[in-house]
Amino acid sequence: MRELGVGLIGTGFMGRAHALAFNNVRAVFELPVTLKLAALADADVERARRCATAWGFARVHNDWQQLIDDPTVDVVAITTPNHLHYPMAMAAVAAGKAVYCEKPLAVSLEQAAAMRRAASAAGVVTRVGYNYQHNPMIVLARQMIDNGELGQIISFQGEFSEDFMADPASPWSWRCDVEHAGGALADLGSHLLSMARFLVGDVESVCADTQTIHTQRPASAGSAERRPIVVDDQVHALLRFAHGARGTLSSSWLKRGYKNHLSFEISGTRATLAFDQERLNELRLCRAGEDGFQRVLAGPALPGYAAFSPAAGHQLGYNELKTLEVHELIMALAGQGSTGIDFAAAWEVERLAAAIRLAARQERWVRVSEV
Amino acid sequence: MRELGVGLIGTGFMGRAHALAFNNVRAVFELPVTLKLAALADADVERARRCATAWGFARVHNDWQQLIDDPTVDVVAITTPNHLHYPMAMAAVAAGKAVYCEKPLAVSLEQAAAMRRAASAAGVVTRVGYNYQHNPMIVLARQMIDNGELGQIISFQGEFSEDFMADPASPWSWRCDVEHAGGALADLGSHLLSMARFLVGDVESVCADTQTIHTQRPASAGSAERRPIVVDDQVHALLRFAHGARGTLSSSWLKRGYKNHLSFEISGTRATLAFDQERLNELRLCRAGEDGFQRVLAGPALPGYAAFSPAAGHQLGYNELKTLEVHELIMALAGQGSTGIDFAAAWEVERLAAAIRLAARQERWVRVSEV
Amino acid sequence: MRELGVGLIGTGFMGRAHALAFNNVRAVFELPVTLKLAALADADVERARRCATAWGFARVHNDWQQLIDDPTVDVVAITTPNHLHYPMAMAAVAAGKAVYCEKPLAVSLEQAAAMRRAASAAGVVTRVGYNYQHNPMIVLARQMIDNGELGQIISFQGEFSEDFMADPASPWSWRCDVEHAGGALADLGSHLLSMARFLVGDVESVCADTQTIHTQRPASAGSAERRPIVVDDQVHALLRFAHGARGTLSSSWLKRGYKNHLSFEISGTRATLAFDQERLNELRLCRAGEDGFQRVLAGPALPGYAAFSPAAGHQLGYNELKTLEVHELIMALAGQGSTGIDFAAAWEVERLAAAIRLAARQERWVRVSEV
Amino acid sequence: MRELGVGLIGTGFMGRAHALAFNNVRAVFELPVTLKLAALADADVERARRCATAWGFARVHNDWQQLIDDPTVDVVAITTPNHLHYPMAMAAVAAGKAVYCEKPLAVSLEQAAAMRRAASAAGVVTRVGYNYQHNPMIVLARQMIDNGELGQIISFQGEFSEDFMADPASPWSWRCDVEHAGGALADLGSHLLSMARFLVGDVESVCADTQTIHTQRPASAGSAERRPIVVDDQVHALLRFAHGARGTLSSSWLKRGYKNHLSFEISGTRATLAFDQERLNELRLCRAGEDGFQRVLAGPALPGYAAFSPAAGHQLGYNELKTLEVHELIMALAGQGSTGIDFAAAWEVERLAAAIRLAARQERWVRVSEV
Repeated sequence: MRELGVGLIGTGFMGRAHALAFNNVRAVFELPVTLKLAALADADVERARRCATAWGFARVHNDWQQLIDDPTVDVVAITTPNHLHYPMAMAAVAAGKAVYCEKPLAVSLEQAAAMRRAASAAGVVTRVGYNYQHNPMIVLARQMIDNGELGQIISFQGEFSEDFMADPASPWSWRCDVEHAGGALADLGSHLLSMARFLVGDVESVCADTQTIHTQRPASAGSAERRPIVVDDQVHALLRFAHGARGTLSSSWLKRGYKNHLSFEISGTRATLAFDQERLNELRLCRAGEDGFQRVLAGPALPGYAAFSPAAGHQLGYNELKTLEVHELIMALAGQGSTGIDFAAAWEVERLAAAIRLAARQERWVRVSEV
Repeated sequence: MRELGVGLIGTGFMGRAHALAFNNVRAVFELPVTLKLAALADADVERARRCATAWGFARVHNDWQQLIDDPTVDVVAITTPNHLHYPMAMAAVAAGKAVYCEKPLAVSLEQAAAMRRAASAAGVVTRVGYNYQHNPMIVLARQMIDNGELGQIISFQGEFSEDFMADPASPWSWRCDVEHAGGALADLGSHLLSMARFLVGDVESVCADTQTIHTQRPASAGSAERRPIVVDDQVHALLRFAHGARGTLSSSWLKRGYKNHLSFEISGTRATLAFDQERLNELRLCRAGEDGFQRVLAGPALPGYAAFSPAAGHQLGYNELKTLEVHELIMALAGQGSTGIDFAAAWEVERLAAAIRLAARQERWVRVSEV
Repeated sequence: MRELGVGLIGTGFMGRAHALAFNNVRAVFELPVTLKLAALADADVERARRCATAWGFARVHNDWQQLIDDPTVDVVAITTPNHLHYPMAMAAVAAGKAVYCEKPLAVSLEQAAAMRRAASAAGVVTRVGYNYQHNPMIVLARQMIDNGELGQIISFQGEFSEDFMADPASPWSWRCDVEHAGGALADLGSHLLSMARFLVGDVESVCADTQTIHTQRPASAGSAERRPIVVDDQVHALLRFAHGARGTLSSSWLKRGYKNHLSFEISGTRATLAFDQERLNELRLCRAGEDGFQRVLAGPALPGYAAFSPAAGHQLGYNELKTLEVHELIMALAGQGSTGIDFAAAWEVERLAAAIRLAARQERWVRVSEV
Repeated sequence: MRELGVGLIGTGFMGRAHALAFNNVRAVFELPVTLKLAALADADVERARRCATAWGFARVHNDWQQLIDDPTVDVVAITTPNHLHYPMAMAAVAAGKAVYCEKPLAVSLEQAAAMRRAASAAGVVTRVGYNYQHNPMIVLARQMIDNGELGQIISFQGEFSEDFMADPASPWSWRCDVEHAGGALADLGSHLLSMARFLVGDVESVCADTQTIHTQRPASAGSAERRPIVVDDQVHALLRFAHGARGTLSSSWLKRGYKNHLSFEISGTRATLAFDQERLNELRLCRAGEDGFQRVLAGPALPGYAAFSPAAGHQLGYNELKTLEVHELIMALAGQGSTGIDFAAAWEVERLAAAIRLAARQERWVRVSEV
């Protein structure tokens, strides 16, 4: 069996989530390749060493370019801050390596477009970390839509809200920085845009409203220094899908009470289906002829669930969605077709977000193809 | 104590709901007037007589103008089909009588404007049946907003969806008729618009999308004859409130699983508050500093609830909201200031709906004052 | 049509609830009799007069015996404190009048047995106010059980908890008085016992545990004087039904967070069905072959609901359950068979409660027929 | 740092769950030891080899005694069928090794007692796999109880129900075998008993009812051959805790709609707290003075959660509870005191289950100390 060497850049929370996923995918799935945790890169080489031991990587680099050039590395996983996605991914693509990059793809639409073109030209496999879509309940939702169980899809109403910036004393961070693709739409809303496209298809045009409520924040926790904030705290948008469905999108990082409220309701002529990431093992479903909404709980009839547990009700966690994402990546690398989000699909998400920003700025409907 | 004579036009479901409310308000509240069920009008005089006996009205008329002219009638309650609201209300106002009219106020914005002007010129008390707003939980929500418990209101997301037209075989009815103010926006959405205005204030501008999914329906149940449908099956809109809040509105009568899903979430800088008419005795609330949403159940600390029950958890029903509405009407007639929806406020709702239709037709943001 | 005269004793909250119900039943249902609100009795004759006017009663009495003897009274409704149920009901039965008595039937099992015997000997119609059973959702539950939709019933788990005595500073009241049938089992649990019998049938034997947590309370609100408390604050019991089902019952008036948590889950070989009075317009149901629990919302397919509203989702309130109870009473008085709780059935509830107390006291299983 | 060698017996679902946990614990926690996956045993040596590669074990044994004797093994993890727990654990204890055994501890109370005595005499660390207790939400519940936030605990109502045997055509398995500690009480109820003891303390006496509904089942899936069933399909019990709380326990594997309904409500004088394993990242809580139940969502304020995610709302899954259990085991092996379930505590659970069976058989209250 072919050996596949993984190189991971970054040792933060997301780096560890990748490491867990690459370890677990070997235990949970029968893979068509032999997976090897080849190399880990971090500028702090001591930290890199410590993490490599804990996470099972064979060697370390303190320079990410070295990791990319490392001949034992076949796929480069990028978990660094957003503004580094572009140079790292471009270098990896240039080296003919597959790339697995955290979202967002880049900090500008131009970067994203360049990454997409480069990957396409090089013919390498790419994936972007929209891990929520690998949830077996989302895969089930997609299947139900594809099978026509919902009938014609007529409405998508989505919201991704959290409250981690609700306190005006929450300090500035790179998430507030427009050059690092900041704002609620970029940070949260992009997950929902990707989800909407995954489930309902291309969006044709949008109209939107974005707003900054807290126009300055402490420069750091507890600091008296204030930094101005220009990125959006909340966004509301209207969506028109290519196949005719209409919908709304809302995203806020100021909404008290929500921690991970990536949620949607999809209305079809034959059924309504609803989901909330805060209860990620459930769907709510009401089919024509039924009295009311039913709670559908994840169980082993779904392959992505069965990989982890033979019994319903055991529940998957966030980190297991990452393992499922990594599994899909590996299957794609082994040439077994799939539905993952590649650079082209991630660019579509960025373009859609850009269309929303443009529509808000110009206060008009914008065709996504304008952007 | 002054005697107040009630004249009721109409003996359908809504007529009976009024009759129940006028009966119950006397038992439930200490009123500043002596309420007398003076007269009931229906073109079918036999039916009028039967209902008058069952509902406790003193006399009957088979002609609504006679009821308006009846000297024992001080307030005219109108529960007839929408297109009759205008002539009846105008006649009552002309006779100097108070008017209590079911929603929508009229079948065109022009009619509504004329009714508003006439009532204002005549100086009569008017009320329109947006009964959901008299729910003690909604009154509580309004108080919390007024008291600043939610902080600055930054977002209103509202939806009123039902499924009673979801089946394409559901036949045409006057609700599908554009001349009778048909469509999901008029039938359902207007309740939500009134609610949004009651809670968050004036809407300044809107952008919207309306859609007819089933463009023809059986002329009547089971009929092979088809009638074309042009009114909206669903609507999605963006709202900008005068005081700065932003939001979305969705309304559909095709959404499987919902029966009376008049719902909203209001996000403030200090708390989030949510409501769903399908569980009308509850609010969901999360204040700054709290771990998550709390279920607040209606109880006797709320005057509107205490009128019906001394113990929490007993729950009010739809008909009791009507009794609360009638109580507010009577208090207004007795000169005791209140927050009911009069013709001026109902005209604002109609104008807002018209602005939404215009925005959808012209695919642009529309200032409400344009209409 | 025969005229039926109603005499009501008591003008408190429950008196008013009866008055509302007798008024509304005429508006809501087509009755086989002409209902007349004949007389209202209260020792305070001024209060009686005021209420009679507000509630529509023809005359007043300041002596309940006079009301019973009043020839215009055919059915005597008793809403006085528990210890007066016995003398009033016995007098009414002796006068050959029908009796509609609030629960509990009496303050001792001996009284209840005497009332049952007297009513049976006199052949009068009797009803006891277990109004929760008239909820259309409960009627639906009973139908589903009778039709075999749940299969063989194997388990009933019921709980009726509230928190109105949770604060140790909540003062003594007659509800704490053993001579007035006090305690959580009598006050709350008896509703659940009646519900269990209505849905699952006779209980054959019980084992139980009762407990007084707060053994003294202020004599009145804010008082420094303490009164000893001996009635149960909470009870837990095992139930064996005659037809083989087993179950548990819990009741507490100390349970923080609950306001009217009269709830149960019934497990059958083909489905599980759950209910909670705090959401009285809903059932939760999962049938064999279905993925999970479904929310069934009350709608006009249920006659008891259709009487009040032609549209699903409008929701009934507590007072409307009372109207449904009164409707069943009137149908029974008109000789049209029904499922209401008469003195015999109410005595069974009291006997079952007595068996639970005996089982707790003697710490052993008790056959209900022992009592 | 000391090296700790792990030997794992068994390669089924639970074996893999252990393997995942031992791998992940190294990535997720800073450990006070160097953890080494030393050896994996399975009678099928080919399977052992394949799994060892996928799961990262250094060597394999086809004989479990060899694994126990392997000098690189310090702790023996047992994931074999229940009847093998006793011989394996006894051998490991005899070899002076620490033991980490899946639940139930043994298939008879006698075995469990012998295991407990042997472990105590040998002075080895032992742990039993009641992994649900390592959920950060359960740890939080325990802390709240210990801190007095709930006040005096007065009631525990627990239920663990599933539906995997609800279909009478579900075949016989070892779970139905009385010699392998079968039945709903053993399989499901024991988790709840352990949870009740963990949260509320020792149980002093019990009364109970057990029932077999389907007294025969197919010998295997689809087989016409029937095997008689004598173990309990459902159990209901009353519990009296040593510190005064009272409660109920229900367990069923026939209850339609439930997949992993390990649930409880704990009522204290100051708060009520509720949990359901089907939503394992949540608690419901109502404190004195609050309006209603609040949903508390797991977040990084809880150390067990923070180990996996820095952000609230990300949610843990079943397998991560296992990682937390393994972490606690390692801390105990490193001499850092903790709250895990050792053989003594697991024997208490078995004794309590035996007391429940005795109480059901003899239809009387049983003191746990009688058994």
